[in-house]
Amino acid sequence: MVKKIEHIGIAVKRLAEAIPVYEKLLQTKCYKTEEVTSENVCTAFFQIGDTKIELLESTTEDGVIAKFIEKKGEGLHHIAFEVDNINEQIHHASPDFHVLQEKPKAGADNKQICFLHPKDTHGVLVEFCQEQ
Amino acid sequence: MVKKIEHIGIAVKRLAEAIPVYEKLLQTKCYKTEEVTSENVCTAFFQIGDTKIELLESTTEDGVIAKFIEKKGEGLHHIAFEVDNINEQIHHASPDFHVLQEKPKAGADNKQICFLHPKDTHGVLVEFCQEQ
Repeated sequence: MVKKIEHIGIAVKRLAEAIPVYEKLLQTKCYKTEEVTSENVCTAFFQIGDTKIELLESTTEDGVIAKFIEKKGEGLHHIAFEVDNINEQIHHASPDFHVLQEKPKAGADNKQICFLHPKDTHGVLVEFCQEQ
Repeated sequence: MVKKIEHIGIAVKRLAEAIPVYEKLLQTKCYKTEEVTSENVCTAFFQIGDTKIELLESTTEDGVIAKFIEKKGEGLHHIAFEVDNINEQIHHASPDFHVLQEKPKAGADNKQICFLHPKDTHGVLVEFCQEQ
């Protein structure tokens, strides 16, 4: 079951520039940065009510975030929905949505995650995540 | 003060196609559709925890949503943050962010709204909104 919007991912070129902008915009401090080596990203988190904003900077020239920015520019990258059981969620979604991972993988913020292909969701990269 | 993420706006070509997809994805029914004539959009809302997903279809060929889709394709369009006082928020944001409206205007869902230019927010179209 989809419980809530866990976070919204935003692709940026440089966290060092984007973090102070978002601190000013959201009137709250970035509470954590974390490198996710398996995804070639460095992330920065902001708590907004029940949800988070996650800024994403690529740590490699050919990472997914670097490629996204090259193609579309900085901006909104994905929505992550918290689910109570990610394996059940993959099973539920599979007939209608192309799940990019057969099995959940480790993401930032101590989560098990998987993504759906944007072609099935009207252009939106959707992440499902479950607290480990 | 920024209270929470009120909704996330997603640009789609046709609500009639996108609504059933999002009902399946989110496992919840669209609870409202509303035309906002001043913005040339028809909107459809889904409640997810404390936040909403707003699908947006252009009602004119040259509306902002039609132009966005022409340029970038369907997908994530904006984030709306609920604020307790939109006039104070505009005042607070103005030195650092280009506010697209001098005064708040009427948006969907009985809100007073304004937008910030994406050039100041690393490519993200940000909406502030206050319940009327």
